[in-house]
Amino acid sequence: MKLSKMILGTLRDVQGETELESYKLMLRAGIIRKVASGVYNFMPIGKKVIENVNSLIKNEMEKMDSQEIEVAQFIPFELLNQCNNKESSFTDTFEIVDKNQKKFYVGADFKESYIEIIKNEIKSYKQLPVSIYSIQKRIKDETKPKFGIIKSKEFNELQCYIFYDDSLESGKYVNRLCEVFKDIYNKCGLDFIKTNSLKFFVKHPLGEEQVVCCEGCGYKEDLEIATCTLQEKEEDDMKPVNKISTPDTRTIDELASLFNTTPEYFVKTIIYKINSKIVAVMVRGDREVNETKVKSKIGHIVSFELADEEIVRYATSAEIGFAGPINLKCDTLLVDEEITRMRNFMVGANETGYHYECVNYERDFTGTVGDFKKITEKDRCPICGNSINIKNVMGLGEIINLETAYSEDMSAVFLDKLGKSKPMSIIKASINVDRLLALIAEQNHDENGIVWPKRVAPYEVIVIAAVFKNEEQMKTAENIYNKLRSMEIDVLLDDRDERAGVKFKDADLIGVPIRITVGKKISEGKVEFKLRNNGNVEDINIGDIEEKVLNGLHKN
Amino acid sequence: MKLSKMILGTLRDVQGETELESYKLMLRAGIIRKVASGVYNFMPIGKKVIENVNSLIKNEMEKMDSQEIEVAQFIPFELLNQCNNKESSFTDTFEIVDKNQKKFYVGADFKESYIEIIKNEIKSYKQLPVSIYSIQKRIKDETKPKFGIIKSKEFNELQCYIFYDDSLESGKYVNRLCEVFKDIYNKCGLDFIKTNSLKFFVKHPLGEEQVVCCEGCGYKEDLEIATCTLQEKEEDDMKPVNKISTPDTRTIDELASLFNTTPEYFVKTIIYKINSKIVAVMVRGDREVNETKVKSKIGHIVSFELADEEIVRYATSAEIGFAGPINLKCDTLLVDEEITRMRNFMVGANETGYHYECVNYERDFTGTVGDFKKITEKDRCPICGNSINIKNVMGLGEIINLETAYSEDMSAVFLDKLGKSKPMSIIKASINVDRLLALIAEQNHDENGIVWPKRVAPYEVIVIAAVFKNEEQMKTAENIYNKLRSMEIDVLLDDRDERAGVKFKDADLIGVPIRITVGKKISEGKVEFKLRNNGNVEDINIGDIEEKVLNGLHKN
Repeated sequence: MKLSKMILGTLRDVQGETELESYKLMLRAGIIRKVASGVYNFMPIGKKVIENVNSLIKNEMEKMDSQEIEVAQFIPFELLNQCNNKESSFTDTFEIVDKNQKKFYVGADFKESYIEIIKNEIKSYKQLPVSIYSIQKRIKDETKPKFGIIKSKEFNELQCYIFYDDSLESGKYVNRLCEVFKDIYNKCGLDFIKTNSLKFFVKHPLGEEQVVCCEGCGYKEDLEIATCTLQEKEEDDMKPVNKISTPDTRTIDELASLFNTTPEYFVKTIIYKINSKIVAVMVRGDREVNETKVKSKIGHIVSFELADEEIVRYATSAEIGFAGPINLKCDTLLVDEEITRMRNFMVGANETGYHYECVNYERDFTGTVGDFKKITEKDRCPICGNSINIKNVMGLGEIINLETAYSEDMSAVFLDKLGKSKPMSIIKASINVDRLLALIAEQNHDENGIVWPKRVAPYEVIVIAAVFKNEEQMKTAENIYNKLRSMEIDVLLDDRDERAGVKFKDADLIGVPIRITVGKKISEGKVEFKLRNNGNVEDINIGDIEEKVLNGLHKN
Repeated sequence: MKLSKMILGTLRDVQGETELESYKLMLRAGIIRKVASGVYNFMPIGKKVIENVNSLIKNEMEKMDSQEIEVAQFIPFELLNQCNNKESSFTDTFEIVDKNQKKFYVGADFKESYIEIIKNEIKSYKQLPVSIYSIQKRIKDETKPKFGIIKSKEFNELQCYIFYDDSLESGKYVNRLCEVFKDIYNKCGLDFIKTNSLKFFVKHPLGEEQVVCCEGCGYKEDLEIATCTLQEKEEDDMKPVNKISTPDTRTIDELASLFNTTPEYFVKTIIYKINSKIVAVMVRGDREVNETKVKSKIGHIVSFELADEEIVRYATSAEIGFAGPINLKCDTLLVDEEITRMRNFMVGANETGYHYECVNYERDFTGTVGDFKKITEKDRCPICGNSINIKNVMGLGEIINLETAYSEDMSAVFLDKLGKSKPMSIIKASINVDRLLALIAEQNHDENGIVWPKRVAPYEVIVIAAVFKNEEQMKTAENIYNKLRSMEIDVLLDDRDERAGVKFKDADLIGVPIRITVGKKISEGKVEFKLRNNGNVEDINIGDIEEKVLNGLHKN
């Protein structure tokens, strides 16, 4: 492509929006343009990059014999509503009603569509395993779009599914997908982390998610599901329960201060309204409730909120601040496992101005025991007991073993070897491709612009004539351009009537891996050869260009 | 790809939906699957075909230096509403309101988005001409989806725009686009027609549009805008107007019968309510009003309907059936040009039970004269006067010279050579790619299945071992498959445990151009080589496969 015929769209500077350097660079390099909050156009250079990322992904999908399909954007209402297992993610899905009064979801997750497709095509174990995928636009009612295309209202998404017979080993399909994801991220030049639960992230101080990392054994897990080593069980004798007056002492901090101790000697009881039921969750006084863990325990969430004052008064027969497990009116009491190992702790007495001391699990109350707490850096690795770090991260993709939950709801069955009808097992994997592109730029840039990895760079080589008015330089540049084109190198010729400095700045900004500059030294038969990633510059003979380019692109 | 790992999805028969043979074949060949009325998934084979059509189009776009972009699906309400020139096509556009109460159109025509992009990037005549394009999903509130993906609620669409300085010749850009469109259709194996107004169609008896074709000079035009040779001006003397009683005679046919003559001696006056105004349209008694011509004369249509009884009574002071131009209360009177050439005709008298005879244009009434009639096969070619045919057609694509209408509304200006600000001239071209694919199948099939043209076929070659259990045949077939793959031929190996007959039927159905069958004759070193398009079968030496395939695909 000749730059004189292109809309390059590079900018020297952009106003505002500077929270993330890569976002600023993507605007400056003419990759994207903002249309509205969370809504972006991909400009020609950006479209080339996204097509390169797509084709890299498609290539990896093909290697694992996954077949590409194109799923309808209109998803009939009935299709999405036949699953009991559905997440609460419907809240950010757009519903539309057409002129014939038919209701559709549009741009939603394609899970049910995929299962419906396979259900209609696959009848026998002989046809399994089978894998299909698509890279398509999703649209989402994202309330707080952020960081450009990292968290936007519309994005290209890879969704890949494997359908298999669980009498065969599922582990191998999951592992295969993990390897494919790792290959994709590596080829995209990304430094990423993979958690135990098969989520992929990059570390980033501005990330809105957290990962727990053990530096001893390498355990990594999403904070939302990470566990920790439990404390030793306290073996003190149980003392009798005692009700004590604690007027105007409603918070754990106020209690700790009143009794001159620290919050971990108390247990707090937090009351929620979940699916119209009252659910109380107990965690140690210094802890926070991990709502993701609570949701996953309850399952099928339709609504989830902290209880309002009225409900708290009803459940505790007291003002806010005095909730406890004894005589609490609730539908479900969830007790963090840590509490069953404590002795003689203090809880609210469900009576305004009073707490109980010397309370003990099992003797004084019981509930559903499980892990409902947020891990902190004070905790220890659940595997090796070493100390842990909590890192802010941004999501890159995930692999979820749905097993047979959805296929049971949707009757997606096949006949096994014995002729028995069985629900299919399903693994789902997904990558937000737009975000992937943004994170590549975030991890691969310097002060001059983006340093695209070779596989995704919008062009492989840029050829610049230093002086526009110098006919010999222009002619030589064009010859080199034509030569490289004939080698099927994706090459850009900067034939604009601009100063060399402007051309160099643009080449750096858009991040072309190899720059060839035709300048004064053509009299000696030499041109300048520069690598964008390490800044290496050398003068080379025109006759050597072919070999140098192939080497530089690792195509030899 | 090995068929044993694929979801092939071929069907021996499909129920219902048989109006169009190609639609039935696309379901049977596993190209598409119906999700809901007008909503389809593309299955693996179909996705391959659509990707091939896309890449064929992209290739032609690149040749004319058009750059691909990706336009946001969310189109802000304000953006689409800044144009006064907009068509009435908003009625089939979906509106959504997000959680932040911002209103968007989704999946609409991208015209305004494109203009907004270019407006922000192009400042000077030096940057013009410039062309950008995209192939993206459109979604549409289509009330009567029909014929599978020919008229559906969502479809992939090419939109290509050229922005230019109209001080240069516009004809050359339009011609360039016409050539590109012709190349695309030819490579897709389509027999198409191009109208004077740059719409492209294929003839089809079930087509819902019509094209006027002159067999003398080759004039072709969309019926909606086609003109015809006007009759000779009648030179009879004007007689005095005379009011005559015509009780209970409301229609032209009743009048003709009453006066024992034919409808062309009368003139009818049809009353519309357009944009809240009363518009009357006069055409000869045997004619029908062409509403497209009326809309285009009025411009900027917000609402368009036939007037109801109440409005007719108000405008004519009479019951329905007696409207005429004299003393009619209307905002606009449109008079078909033919009427100005008639003498002493009869019209309604705007009085129940009466008509005027011997009415003449100019002497008795005046209005806005123009072409407002539907052409019929009784008319004559406007160019050469020969007789014409009217053919049913289905649309393939169109090129529209928008000139500066939209850029004026949107202030999309540039500085010309003299430093003066000028609105850009714009040409828009579009192709519904899904419909294109369906029409390829409609024009390229036989009783056994689809005969895909080589450029768009899902695979180029299929290799079949006649007997699954014959190890030598299977081994040879796999060797041929691997050999062709190494030549970068897109080849399919049918390695399923099925009878040869089933494999042959599937190969014909999905329409792979070349079939190689490994059978008994491998003992003589021969395989069967069959071309799908002409059914030619020959036994060839295994050593000749390479050359025969390259010749068969015209790759030599």
